[in-house]
Amino acid sequence: MVVTSPGAGRIRGMNKTIVLLTDFGLSDAYVGTMKGVMAGICSTARFIDITHDIMPQNVRQAAYVLLTAYRFFPPDTVFLVVVDPGVGTPRDPVAVATDYGIFVAPDNGVLSYVLTRQAVTQIVRLQNPAFQLPTISQTFHGRDIFSPAAAYIANGIELEQFGPALPELLKIEEPRLEITENQLVGEVLHIDHFGNVITSLGELIWHDECLQLTARFGPGYRVTPQFAAARCTITAGAQTLTGIQRTYGAVPVGMLTALVGSSGQLEIGVNQGNAALTLNLSPGDPIIVTFETD
Amino acid sequence: MVVTSPGAGRIRGMNKTIVLLTDFGLSDAYVGTMKGVMAGICSTARFIDITHDIMPQNVRQAAYVLLTAYRFFPPDTVFLVVVDPGVGTPRDPVAVATDYGIFVAPDNGVLSYVLTRQAVTQIVRLQNPAFQLPTISQTFHGRDIFSPAAAYIANGIELEQFGPALPELLKIEEPRLEITENQLVGEVLHIDHFGNVITSLGELIWHDECLQLTARFGPGYRVTPQFAAARCTITAGAQTLTGIQRTYGAVPVGMLTALVGSSGQLEIGVNQGNAALTLNLSPGDPIIVTFETD
Amino acid sequence: MVVTSPGAGRIRGMNKTIVLLTDFGLSDAYVGTMKGVMAGICSTARFIDITHDIMPQNVRQAAYVLLTAYRFFPPDTVFLVVVDPGVGTPRDPVAVATDYGIFVAPDNGVLSYVLTRQAVTQIVRLQNPAFQLPTISQTFHGRDIFSPAAAYIANGIELEQFGPALPELLKIEEPRLEITENQLVGEVLHIDHFGNVITSLGELIWHDECLQLTARFGPGYRVTPQFAAARCTITAGAQTLTGIQRTYGAVPVGMLTALVGSSGQLEIGVNQGNAALTLNLSPGDPIIVTFETD
Repeated sequence: MVVTSPGAGRIRGMNKTIVLLTDFGLSDAYVGTMKGVMAGICSTARFIDITHDIMPQNVRQAAYVLLTAYRFFPPDTVFLVVVDPGVGTPRDPVAVATDYGIFVAPDNGVLSYVLTRQAVTQIVRLQNPAFQLPTISQTFHGRDIFSPAAAYIANGIELEQFGPALPELLKIEEPRLEITENQLVGEVLHIDHFGNVITSLGELIWHDECLQLTARFGPGYRVTPQFAAARCTITAGAQTLTGIQRTYGAVPVGMLTALVGSSGQLEIGVNQGNAALTLNLSPGDPIIVTFETD
Repeated sequence: MVVTSPGAGRIRGMNKTIVLLTDFGLSDAYVGTMKGVMAGICSTARFIDITHDIMPQNVRQAAYVLLTAYRFFPPDTVFLVVVDPGVGTPRDPVAVATDYGIFVAPDNGVLSYVLTRQAVTQIVRLQNPAFQLPTISQTFHGRDIFSPAAAYIANGIELEQFGPALPELLKIEEPRLEITENQLVGEVLHIDHFGNVITSLGELIWHDECLQLTARFGPGYRVTPQFAAARCTITAGAQTLTGIQRTYGAVPVGMLTALVGSSGQLEIGVNQGNAALTLNLSPGDPIIVTFETD
Repeated sequence: MVVTSPGAGRIRGMNKTIVLLTDFGLSDAYVGTMKGVMAGICSTARFIDITHDIMPQNVRQAAYVLLTAYRFFPPDTVFLVVVDPGVGTPRDPVAVATDYGIFVAPDNGVLSYVLTRQAVTQIVRLQNPAFQLPTISQTFHGRDIFSPAAAYIANGIELEQFGPALPELLKIEEPRLEITENQLVGEVLHIDHFGNVITSLGELIWHDECLQLTARFGPGYRVTPQFAAARCTITAGAQTLTGIQRTYGAVPVGMLTALVGSSGQLEIGVNQGNAALTLNLSPGDPIIVTFETD
């Protein structure tokens, strides 16, 4: 439940970065058209794409990709997230102000991984026609509703101008992460461009030769169990790996290795190769790490 | 035949948006190189990509994609359209000022769908070497001729500086659209990233429970016949669908549906699926809508 | 061996163009995240992508693509080149000032084709933590080290602030080019988006009906042998072509042709078709041109 802070959802000063994340691909005019709409409203906006290659309608993948990226943008960024299987149905289009960025998206859970880590200061439904295109299509709210909203927000319009406050947003299930005394059980979250297998086992940080597993919920992370990185086995697909390395270069070219990836999650890769193909893994497949105990 | 209006083709004020549409793909340096050339000429230009995934040398697809997108950009945008199977042959490179944007392109018909809808105020051949790279390759006029022209136009150089006026441009055939008392016959124009099948049957607008078909030529559209959307059959590939819906969400996940897409054209999709694969349709295939008459 | 010129590696004035070249693809958040980091440091930077589709870890392809593109950007551009199979191993991250642009990259040879053609004024190792992210991952130095460096350089920070001077950089082998009295022997360098086969046979320029082959090393090219373009045979894969044309349009649609491409290299294409598929050629395959002698 959000206690609305009037004026919280407002971009001040000169940063006009609008960051896009969609499942629209780049082979149609969809993404360019959204930028055209925004360029007409906010003539000084700078557009940065996170990616437009989210699998079609895959809200969960989009939620994860957004989570890995948003903290690297300036804190007053406007994030425009359009992965919207419910376009044309009554799901709400929303804008959400947080203490790190303002997010414009359909209310379908796509923001929920970010919002467990970032305090929400304001949520509004996007319904004021003054901040929408004159004609609203049934199939492209990215162009007709979400893009104008993002651009007007970048122009400094306060969120309360867009529509009524909403108390909360739809949440989707967090990625699997079961922690026992000597075992972590998770799942494959994402296969990247290099074929690296990104898992839900995180957020991990190195502490000398050990890995610390930090608590995953709430803005203040607590450090929890600590495991000896060298003394573990990782079961992934039909194979078992031993030990968690610090870098791909720690093993010979072509060899499988587990390490902590750039988002703090356990990742399985092949030095200069493709681990997802080697292991035949897809999003959702289980990953189990068993630590030796003395 | 264009009556030249001197000074019409000139960007004034601060908007320096240059919008790119090509068939160059993103895996080579071609698009980046064009932006590099333009950045050196117009240091404040903002570049927006419509897409670079037009099928190689497919002028007709490019003409269609441009048509769906251009009106969503600011009216003083410079559009750089390079789909150019005739590069190195005597086809003219041109700049065309209209009452909605200035277009830089080869004279091969790629602008013709836009130009049936937008009044042309000036056409010039791009031949002044002062506004070209010092060396003109035979294979990459996008870099050597078109990009410098777009950037100098964004800088405010008047079109008459670029070369002699031309009276008219090459036209390509409009997409198929045959209208009889109770039938519309058209073709598949484009398969989008989601597998939605975009047809030439448009431009359609909803009027209560009916669809109105608007006239397609000239800047002032006239509304023509009106059909009951629920009472029609659509023949597409080997299948027949019944009725035109307002939104993908109106049918269960996985089901085929026909609706009016975001560009006002009849579109066939599968709710959260791929209609082009389901129906085995490609650009050029016929689409027939038959309305019931009492 | 570089004689350091203090202050040479400094961006002055208003150009803040940062140009990116990586093997990260566009389907993950990697590229967007790097731009986010840079946007937070240099709020006025303009980002231009050369491409992110370099084959994973293919340093040689990246070196070639950079060579074809860099001269078309403004001379005070910051180039951020991250193709980095050695991430996490002791290879140095570097910044290199030249008389045409400043380059930020791993020291793995990716700059070496550019640097045989451009005088180097300063090389530094990137090691000052003031210009890096607070936490350095083992797998994503593009985000944690290279991007902050590029953005601070765009802000005008002098290279000597980043770390100690280095005397030289790793070099990789130049593309194959053997010149005898009547023969050129080279290799396929790159297959482009259109299926055009770009070869290492260059840099060629037309002189009337002859081709001149210019010397490839050092900033002042010397013109060397001259060949009659019409009187040669080109052996490529299982086929032999006759003559070098000026443009694809010089032969009928669908026919194979050899010409001088937009980077000055011999290129084999099919007019409106795909030569790499027709000839079954891949990077590294030999290409032999034999000129007739009287």
